[in-house]
Amino acid sequence: MRNIRFVVSYDGTHYSGFQTQPSGNTVQDQLEKAILKLTGETVKVTSSGRTDAGVHARAQVCNFHTDSRIPVERWSMALNSRLPSDIVVRSADEVPETFHARKSAKRKTYSYFIRCSKFHDVFERAYQYHHPGHLDIAAMKDAITAIVGEHDFTSFCSVHTELESKVRTIYEAAIEHIPDAGDLPETSGVLKITVTGNGFLYNMVRIIVGTLIEIGEGKRPAAEMRAILEARDRSRAGPTAMAHGLMLWSVEY
Amino acid sequence: MRNIRFVVSYDGTHYSGFQTQPSGNTVQDQLEKAILKLTGETVKVTSSGRTDAGVHARAQVCNFHTDSRIPVERWSMALNSRLPSDIVVRSADEVPETFHARKSAKRKTYSYFIRCSKFHDVFERAYQYHHPGHLDIAAMKDAITAIVGEHDFTSFCSVHTELESKVRTIYEAAIEHIPDAGDLPETSGVLKITVTGNGFLYNMVRIIVGTLIEIGEGKRPAAEMRAILEARDRSRAGPTAMAHGLMLWSVEY
Repeated sequence: MRNIRFVVSYDGTHYSGFQTQPSGNTVQDQLEKAILKLTGETVKVTSSGRTDAGVHARAQVCNFHTDSRIPVERWSMALNSRLPSDIVVRSADEVPETFHARKSAKRKTYSYFIRCSKFHDVFERAYQYHHPGHLDIAAMKDAITAIVGEHDFTSFCSVHTELESKVRTIYEAAIEHIPDAGDLPETSGVLKITVTGNGFLYNMVRIIVGTLIEIGEGKRPAAEMRAILEARDRSRAGPTAMAHGLMLWSVEY
Repeated sequence: MRNIRFVVSYDGTHYSGFQTQPSGNTVQDQLEKAILKLTGETVKVTSSGRTDAGVHARAQVCNFHTDSRIPVERWSMALNSRLPSDIVVRSADEVPETFHARKSAKRKTYSYFIRCSKFHDVFERAYQYHHPGHLDIAAMKDAITAIVGEHDFTSFCSVHTELESKVRTIYEAAIEHIPDAGDLPETSGVLKITVTGNGFLYNMVRIIVGTLIEIGEGKRPAAEMRAILEARDRSRAGPTAMAHGLMLWSVEY
């Protein structure tokens, strides 16, 4: 059997997340349907990790096993012609039998986009969380440094998670302020919050962002981020930020 | 009566263009509905010019007359809370009685976006025309210079237009190649075609772009652009490029 890896972008707006579930239309369902149409085979597509309902992916990585003899350079085009326009396979290659999109992943990067201005951006409304009020960006930049390193992220994990270990390593965490061109009134910019780690717990990035927003709003001091982390208590952190601002940016192997 | 001017962004995907028409949901209808809800007045909103079905606007300028005494700084917020999320009023101000969004406009700028890569960009799919094949950008840049200046644009105007004069002045016309970040496979970049003029005929930018694409594809030499213009014959130009790549960028007064 061949093991095919592919990189896929998707707009998560209309999906109940990546992973197949009893109710709801998922990205995995669409990919498996396209492969079935192309090859006649019912396969299971494995991703680097599920994304929640409404979360997007710029470069999700997946793999599946197949007996199909379609040349590897034809997979992208052949799948794209069978996929809806909000899912695009960007590339495909053949990998060793042992490659597993989730287990082989070394680093994953998520980005969260916050539109900071009085009104939302019409053209980015599906990919940016709109925050009309003032945010203290310096305080948020200060706070985010607390999560870098190996930590127990229980405080930043949905309570609906049953996992042996909630220890993860964050390699990088940064906030970039991208100002608007400035030629139009009533604009300010976008905050891009980027977090790279060896793995992420359920809702982890969204709870980190929800907490950072409260710090940016002045509801909590920046120094509290470290205390929240050390508390290992979900109730100490802020709310789960909305799904549509989050994007799985890249996965490294 | 007060004369209120406002700047509005809209995603044209789901509208039958800007201007009210017997069949179809238009941006003007939505704006007038929001003003009616807010003030109880039935007004006529005038824009700098209609945009076709599916065409977007980053900064369309409009005005309307009202007896409402709502302070000018409250109009944007008040209208936005009554508008669908694909239309956003960015700012509003009070202008002299004589101001007319169309007649007072001095210069208008349109931008057309072409995605040049094997596959479309999921996140920009509503705002970029996807061209998977090779385009000779140098030839397109050469050709577009022909339209700068005062010309009779009959060749670049829909035949369904009854107008006294098809003479317009183009002040600037340029093509910018915006390359992708380059960290992902199978990408290339976006062509942003920008045209600034004192006015535009029906479908004019889209026919110019359709002709430039044929030049980029090598179907016509770059030098033909000038000959097409001089012919004053719509049948000499290329096809009308798709609406969704076009955006009214700005209007100057």
